[in-house]
Amino acid sequence: MDIPSFDGWTCPLPLKNYPTIVMGHGAGGKMMNDLIRHLFAADFHNDLLAQLGDSTALELSAFRDQRLAFSTDSFVVSPLFFPGGDIGELAVNGTVNDLAMSGAMPLFLSAGFILEEGLEMETLGRISASMARACEIAGVQIAAGDTKVVERGHGDGVYINTTGIGVIPAGVDIAPTNARPGDLIIVSGTLGDHGIAIMSVREGLGFESEIKSDTAPLNGMVAEMLQVKGGHKGTPIHCLRDATRGGLSAVLNELAVASNVGIEFEEEKVPVRPAVNAACEMLGLDPFYIANEGKLVAFVLETVAEEILAVMRNNEHGKNAVIIGRVTDEHPGLVVARTMIGGSRVVDLPAGELLPRIC
Amino acid sequence: MDIPSFDGWTCPLPLKNYPTIVMGHGAGGKMMNDLIRHLFAADFHNDLLAQLGDSTALELSAFRDQRLAFSTDSFVVSPLFFPGGDIGELAVNGTVNDLAMSGAMPLFLSAGFILEEGLEMETLGRISASMARACEIAGVQIAAGDTKVVERGHGDGVYINTTGIGVIPAGVDIAPTNARPGDLIIVSGTLGDHGIAIMSVREGLGFESEIKSDTAPLNGMVAEMLQVKGGHKGTPIHCLRDATRGGLSAVLNELAVASNVGIEFEEEKVPVRPAVNAACEMLGLDPFYIANEGKLVAFVLETVAEEILAVMRNNEHGKNAVIIGRVTDEHPGLVVARTMIGGSRVVDLPAGELLPRIC
Repeated sequence: MDIPSFDGWTCPLPLKNYPTIVMGHGAGGKMMNDLIRHLFAADFHNDLLAQLGDSTALELSAFRDQRLAFSTDSFVVSPLFFPGGDIGELAVNGTVNDLAMSGAMPLFLSAGFILEEGLEMETLGRISASMARACEIAGVQIAAGDTKVVERGHGDGVYINTTGIGVIPAGVDIAPTNARPGDLIIVSGTLGDHGIAIMSVREGLGFESEIKSDTAPLNGMVAEMLQVKGGHKGTPIHCLRDATRGGLSAVLNELAVASNVGIEFEEEKVPVRPAVNAACEMLGLDPFYIANEGKLVAFVLETVAEEILAVMRNNEHGKNAVIIGRVTDEHPGLVVARTMIGGSRVVDLPAGELLPRIC
Repeated sequence: MDIPSFDGWTCPLPLKNYPTIVMGHGAGGKMMNDLIRHLFAADFHNDLLAQLGDSTALELSAFRDQRLAFSTDSFVVSPLFFPGGDIGELAVNGTVNDLAMSGAMPLFLSAGFILEEGLEMETLGRISASMARACEIAGVQIAAGDTKVVERGHGDGVYINTTGIGVIPAGVDIAPTNARPGDLIIVSGTLGDHGIAIMSVREGLGFESEIKSDTAPLNGMVAEMLQVKGGHKGTPIHCLRDATRGGLSAVLNELAVASNVGIEFEEEKVPVRPAVNAACEMLGLDPFYIANEGKLVAFVLETVAEEILAVMRNNEHGKNAVIIGRVTDEHPGLVVARTMIGGSRVVDLPAGELLPRIC
């Protein structure tokens, strides 16, 4: 199985007596202190965590008059390690991306761990190291943390909540209600990779070697996109959404309803890897409904759409970006896909479960 | 059993088809939207959640130049309802209190739910309503949320992460490293109530009628305490800590180490309810190690300690406040309890598990 490779993980000496997590690691005493100090604080080391307070004081006066972005996400993905990533990296990138989707520069994350008794210390160590690396890449700091332990059979190894704070640059006004007829719709790359990567490894479908999760931080690309100016409101980017649970169809449906506009896109323009398409056909799934963890959908002013597209294609996380459709004043609230042969169909919000525990 | 009483809970009509949580409630489609819209958004309704974005934009320019406080806590308490409270109220008060312990005015919370398949919708409904009520009492808003569902046998009904943002008033400088020899140590009321309330109901010990959790928001009392002026640094309150996991002994040990000072207190001055004392004796537990959810420990300048004490006693959450000891420059890092008969003992940090899943 093509799981991510790690440098050899070395157990910190004070934790050597505990090959696995036990209930005491969550009980507020010396064992919990050891775990936090020698594992998490060592991996996430920064001056903020060194405050050791019940809460962490953040200095944001450099950003006075700017709005904050605030977002939370719990991660329960199964398995914990999958082709292209792991729950730790996902937990960092997921919240970084949610912040970036309001145009914010992500700054601080909290990390809340719910550990299951019996979790191997090495597994936790690798996840913690992966989070630290992802934070470094995304340029964020873990500024607050919490650890709880539940009995065997009441968790699944580790669940992670990350909650993030970012700063929204002055003049940026990106919101689900901002789509306007005429806006063009860009997707930043191939869809369905994350969901199919998870399904493949979970169900033993044998696609693992071909399909990797696309988990990636998108804040850098968003910052570049925001440099493109245009429109009377200052920013020509009206809506941004990362296409996670529910995939492209959930994003388009939510924005169509929130902005009370219609959406039309051309099916064959949506980039999907051949291997993902093949897996979807075999599983009876529609790639438009599959979760992504490193792809965004942007609704932008028509006049600068090509310029924004060029900026995206210049970024490693947007090199396959493409315009797939447009916003219309017809059929408000509805998302319509046009097919190559001239037909059209309504793309509805998925009802319930497609792929459980995908993130 | 004396569990908290609720008004009759009425299931919102669009959720009637789901007496219990199913996997689809976490899958990003229509079912999840229904749950969020008709349960959580209805209970927590505010303009912030109405933004419906991947992240929520917060306007904090009224607090320019003030530092932010940031804190996270996951709640895995078992059982979900207990004498004096429930997991929802605890999740709000817990993070509100962590913010207040840096002197901050709590403003915004996120709420991340990990629901177990099969959880009764009514149970979730009562917890959600309880959170909403607790937010109203504490004066905070839930500004961001997330819902995940895990399969039966991988959770325990519901786990809740709350992460909070508060604003630290200018001039306030409260930190674990700020304790100074001569500071007096105040506890805000009786200790051990929460932990013993949970233990009683979980183990069927029959103390339930007497002992209730002390879960309460302490931010109001802290704001009043901060009105007392004194000392050259502007604020005479040097350290604040709520005595949760690990109880009084964890707080005193952590502050003694962080500030590199010694701590002495008189055992018999620590207020403990007779019923809690009796339960502790029966269970072989030390009330100084038991978790509280509505009690704080304050290290304050000696000259204004009585004034701060009076302010606390005037508040419903501090009416049993008492000075229990002082900070010394002897035995740095050590906590020593003096007994009535003139003896003394070192009160160490608890090692590991005392009472699992107490919060």
